Amino acid sequence: MSENDVKRLVVIGGVAAGMSAASQAKRRQKDLDVVVLEKSDWVSYGACGMPYNIEDPNRKIDDLVVISAERFRTERGIDVRTRTEATEIDLAKHEVVAKRPDGQSRIGFDRLVIATGCTPVHPNLEGMNLPGIFQLHTLDQAASIKRWLNDPSLKRAVVVGGGHIGLELVDVLTARGLAVTLIRRSPTLPSGAPREITAQVEAELQKYGVEVRTGDTVVGFEGQGKVQRVLTSSGPLDADIVIVATGVRPAIDLAKNAGIEIGPSGAIAVDDHMATSAQGVYAAGDCAEAHHIILNKGMFIPRGTTANKQGKIAGANAVGADERFRGVMGTSVMRIFGLSVANTGLTDSQAREAGLEAQAVMIKAKTRAHAYPGAKDILVRLLFQPSGGKLLGAYMLGGEGVAKRIDIIVAALTAGFTVDDLASLDLSYAPPYAPVWDPILVAANIARKKVH
Amino acid sequence: MSENDVKRLVVIGGVAAGMSAASQAKRRQKDLDVVVLEKSDWVSYGACGMPYNIEDPNRKIDDLVVISAERFRTERGIDVRTRTEATEIDLAKHEVVAKRPDGQSRIGFDRLVIATGCTPVHPNLEGMNLPGIFQLHTLDQAASIKRWLNDPSLKRAVVVGGGHIGLELVDVLTARGLAVTLIRRSPTLPSGAPREITAQVEAELQKYGVEVRTGDTVVGFEGQGKVQRVLTSSGPLDADIVIVATGVRPAIDLAKNAGIEIGPSGAIAVDDHMATSAQGVYAAGDCAEAHHIILNKGMFIPRGTTANKQGKIAGANAVGADERFRGVMGTSVMRIFGLSVANTGLTDSQAREAGLEAQAVMIKAKTRAHAYPGAKDILVRLLFQPSGGKLLGAYMLGGEGVAKRIDIIVAALTAGFTVDDLASLDLSYAPPYAPVWDPILVAANIARKKVH
Repeated sequence: MSENDVKRLVVIGGVAAGMSAASQAKRRQKDLDVVVLEKSDWVSYGACGMPYNIEDPNRKIDDLVVISAERFRTERGIDVRTRTEATEIDLAKHEVVAKRPDGQSRIGFDRLVIATGCTPVHPNLEGMNLPGIFQLHTLDQAASIKRWLNDPSLKRAVVVGGGHIGLELVDVLTARGLAVTLIRRSPTLPSGAPREITAQVEAELQKYGVEVRTGDTVVGFEGQGKVQRVLTSSGPLDADIVIVATGVRPAIDLAKNAGIEIGPSGAIAVDDHMATSAQGVYAAGDCAEAHHIILNKGMFIPRGTTANKQGKIAGANAVGADERFRGVMGTSVMRIFGLSVANTGLTDSQAREAGLEAQAVMIKAKTRAHAYPGAKDILVRLLFQPSGGKLLGAYMLGGEGVAKRIDIIVAALTAGFTVDDLASLDLSYAPPYAPVWDPILVAANIARKKVH
Repeated sequence: MSENDVKRLVVIGGVAAGMSAASQAKRRQKDLDVVVLEKSDWVSYGACGMPYNIEDPNRKIDDLVVISAERFRTERGIDVRTRTEATEIDLAKHEVVAKRPDGQSRIGFDRLVIATGCTPVHPNLEGMNLPGIFQLHTLDQAASIKRWLNDPSLKRAVVVGGGHIGLELVDVLTARGLAVTLIRRSPTLPSGAPREITAQVEAELQKYGVEVRTGDTVVGFEGQGKVQRVLTSSGPLDADIVIVATGVRPAIDLAKNAGIEIGPSGAIAVDDHMATSAQGVYAAGDCAEAHHIILNKGMFIPRGTTANKQGKIAGANAVGADERFRGVMGTSVMRIFGLSVANTGLTDSQAREAGLEAQAVMIKAKTRAHAYPGAKDILVRLLFQPSGGKLLGAYMLGGEGVAKRIDIIVAALTAGFTVDDLASLDLSYAPPYAPVWDPILVAANIARKKVH
């Protein structure tokens, strides 16, 4: 089908990937009929910003909306249909079945982008539906949490799960004046992090008064009319609010039921053009696999950045472009109180599973020049192949300068650098921003000595 | 000569390159006799930190010293001789002639590292030697400036020259409560910067009350017993302190007089092992050329980072190692009041002189996610080849996140990335640190569209 034969693009899901796809397709083909089906009231919001919005009682929840559904309609000519849930993809008829408050409709498409995102794991626990127990996945859920927190009598919060959302909410709920307990099944925090990083994160949580229970399991919840206690394998805990953030899964039911191929990771299988196994059907964002550049395979790594990139590419290719998604490096950064914690590339266990011999070096340095005031500590941990020195990944943790410093490693990994290449970089230097030997160079120089 | 025949290494110059060379050689060969000749009282100090030290009247000037001469002697076994000025290199006899307060001596060497740094250009102007007129190059000069600033009656400062040191001192002298005028011969600020960057820098200077006279020339100084007026081509200016920072030249006299080859840049010619044209003689730091990776030629680009890297390599190779200096990218960053200004790779004029077709795109973005509080503006300007899209260089300017963000470009340039490669990077994202589309990705995506 040539580009001009594409009359209508339907996009299922109106957050990062979906709205990127819709906008990109419409921009490239002005006469295209673009229909976005979004089951909630909201489109195009910064989901990653929700914890930080909750932190500030004076911020409106809808300031997270980048562009409103109304503006998409009037300014971009995109037919955004909120409260419209796609319930079936009929590949034979090239139609999507959708449910609205006022009934059901069938919408034909020439091209389809599936951007259904992911859904939080909902543990099947006694008392899980008590008021005061929340998950944080949609803007509506964020608004509910915020309303609950308006009650000044709240004293104790329990966060279940130590992933990004769990850790960010521990920070936020502490800032809102609550005594917070974090319950985490896995012994490491964040998950997969090496011991040296985990130890620093736990110390930071303790410094801010957070009680951390790693290796503990929630077995249920109790309360009269609202949550009052969390029952765990090590005993009950009082709680006035509970956040359950025990991970997410790709939202693939629609695609799977239509017979579209699901990858080994559990997310929708896509090629580097974001095309699925079904002709004319693309997938993008958290519901789709992301090709890991080093591991050379599709993985489920939900990220707002990836969703935006993949959505843009899916939307472009849906109207005849030839855009390629180059893959991800597994990059991540989060704020935990006064620390930034970041990683990219392979973790130790990913390297081991991939059969790669890997060695780590870690250094502690300052973020500013010798004697320059206000310097913070920073840890840089490099993972590399001792034979040849190829860089495999990195963790960083520190009081400033972490987020964009990890990105130097992202570029280095993408280029296939060795630790020797890394040590040679002409990185910027001025006393307010770095020591004369940037912490990355210090780590790379130590790693070089271990290469044979 | 095998490693074991090297009994004595002499290093001329005890700042960044010299002390790095001395330390590295001694670390690799414990029984080596290492003699460092330093004409001042100070070794191993962070010269780049001097402006920031001057800013704070309560900081001691000698807290810039990383390791004292005494500690080098006692802890590292390095024979550091301060107040000892090398006056001649006798290549035939393998001796350095040095002058001390108590007389002259000749010191034999098996290997020599020349790390004489650079010297500030001293304009030959009427009244240039009046008290209150300073250059900032050595720790002693920094101490003199600081003593002069202790006088609370000072009102007006004039800074001559708009390079790094000039601009940093404008900031510092303003912070010390003086009314500052900056006189700058060249029309751009910083030198070589594109108009869009220059305009922002000038606006920032004006915002902080600095009077900027670009295209003006100083013709002399007047005063009774101390400087009181600066005479310029556009008229006289009152001044209670004057800083003359009109550039630096490599300190090559010793090397040149010994017949050691000087490169076309005016700095000492070296190979990638930091070896000069003379057998057994190395040069490192500001006095030596630095190989520019893109331009593929030796240049005079004085930087503390390069001095440390080159010194370490020279010291290693002096005792038989096979270490290679991979070159520089011309990276630079500086703080000007609330702005950070950085660049790396080629400037527009360098690209033009190299005969490279080059095109620029510039974007303005925010440093944090949509609706995240405290975001600052950031400009990213990419220079690239329109045919093929190879990245050539970048400028960045903004309120935060500039210094390490420019380093992502450093890695990309070192890897030979195109703007398409750059646009594909899996850069880190969390609302406190970047928008979901990092400003670099936004700029790279716009540049991609211009590539054919």
